[in-house]
Amino acid sequence: MTVSIETISEQRSFGGTQGFYRHMSAACGGPMRFAVYRPPQASEGKCPVLYYLAGLTCTEETATIKAGAQRLAAELGLILVMPDTSPRDTGFDGATGDWEFGEGAGFYLDATEAPWSSRFRMYSYIVEELPALIAERFPVDAQRTGIFGHSMGGHGALAIALKNPGRYRSVSAFSPIVAPTQVPWGQKAFANYLGKDTTSWRDYDACELVRRNPFPGTILIDQGEADKFLEGQLRPELFERACVESGQQLTLRRHPGYDHSYYFIATFIEDHLRHHAHVLAGR
Amino acid sequence: MTVSIETISEQRSFGGTQGFYRHMSAACGGPMRFAVYRPPQASEGKCPVLYYLAGLTCTEETATIKAGAQRLAAELGLILVMPDTSPRDTGFDGATGDWEFGEGAGFYLDATEAPWSSRFRMYSYIVEELPALIAERFPVDAQRTGIFGHSMGGHGALAIALKNPGRYRSVSAFSPIVAPTQVPWGQKAFANYLGKDTTSWRDYDACELVRRNPFPGTILIDQGEADKFLEGQLRPELFERACVESGQQLTLRRHPGYDHSYYFIATFIEDHLRHHAHVLAGR
Repeated sequence: MTVSIETISEQRSFGGTQGFYRHMSAACGGPMRFAVYRPPQASEGKCPVLYYLAGLTCTEETATIKAGAQRLAAELGLILVMPDTSPRDTGFDGATGDWEFGEGAGFYLDATEAPWSSRFRMYSYIVEELPALIAERFPVDAQRTGIFGHSMGGHGALAIALKNPGRYRSVSAFSPIVAPTQVPWGQKAFANYLGKDTTSWRDYDACELVRRNPFPGTILIDQGEADKFLEGQLRPELFERACVESGQQLTLRRHPGYDHSYYFIATFIEDHLRHHAHVLAGR
Repeated sequence: MTVSIETISEQRSFGGTQGFYRHMSAACGGPMRFAVYRPPQASEGKCPVLYYLAGLTCTEETATIKAGAQRLAAELGLILVMPDTSPRDTGFDGATGDWEFGEGAGFYLDATEAPWSSRFRMYSYIVEELPALIAERFPVDAQRTGIFGHSMGGHGALAIALKNPGRYRSVSAFSPIVAPTQVPWGQKAFANYLGKDTTSWRDYDACELVRRNPFPGTILIDQGEADKFLEGQLRPELFERACVESGQQLTLRRHPGYDHSYYFIATFIEDHLRHHAHVLAGR
């Protein structure tokens, strides 16, 4: 079965192609958009694939425009997939107007509470539906898949990799939410998407997950020390402690002066792409 | 005399600082915004300074966010200055609503026609007022100044460098308008800003200017062959011919598949920064 994908645009970038696409998502019950960067090597054969999950308020365009990842992807021969952060135009009460929740804030989970449960199924979308689509339509070697992300997307990358170590061979994050069950951003989203019973919340909490099953490989995390969300929402020390307790290999780097923005991400994205390429492509 | 500058934001980027600033401009009769990137070397002493002039519809944020220039500026020790493309909130009839003319489309000239002549004086702003401000407030070595730009800003960079070879030691452009007096974008803007007598137009036409006085150094131009404005508005072959006739050293590179966007600019900006650093810093 061939899935229908609409090409929104394709543009030449670093000898490869930066594309934006739209398709009807079964998981999310409506149209979803995503970006794919194909490096020059993709015209010769299959390449490793690296998923990037963006943070609150972002779209499939944000990192594509701001992170400067294409240069390294072209050098290292990585296909980059950058999906949107939630379904859009859902019409649900409360889905827009709050940058911490709803559209643009899908938190990479499968909502179980109405009305969110009919559309906000980003976990299934990112882990199952999108990779199947990508494998069918782009020259990826799905055996060599990595995932990373920023903030809410760092939470998504960590949780998804920890829950699916067989699917993801490398994982990293910029300024991730590591303990969503313990911080306001996560508590607000999880209560609305998953309900008041906090038992199910733990299945999406990186600190909980790493204690259950460490990831078979080093996790790289970069965090800016001038990040205004550091103490209230991100709290990397909680993940650091959980990794020590569970024997998880972790490289956590704290960078004085850097904030939560894409200026921070762009500065260190080379290290992340090399981290993934080292695992995925032996480079 | 110390000029007052308001700091809008400053963020850490590649070991240096990306800042956005606002000040009252005498040349433009109102507030103007600009961006400055200070590389790590700027905390040690004075650095060469490179001005980037953006194209139609752009602001001081566009290249700052999209071009990926900070990485190279940090490596090469260049201060980057990225001004807005026109005065804003002028309230003039016709100043907004047309992306080819008015606000966001200052064309880097001093308008002589009312009402534009009271505010649209981007030539004086870029050549005189802004560099004086920058020299006073940032650690630049003004003897080592370069200029480059994109599209309308490529026109600006070429015209400004050709008119002021003593002030600018290096010049380059992405997909520049090289013959504004011969193409619709330039003809529309020049007629409105400079009036119907086309004699004065020639003072801002790179093809005219290079015939009068070649630039003492090689001019680097990159042009995408899939640029939809190539044949109608850009016409690099006109500049190529003028350079041959005047003995101007020119490196004009045509890139198959690349369009007019910042994906194109980001792909080749490393070559431009290295071109400028070679002249300005001997690197």
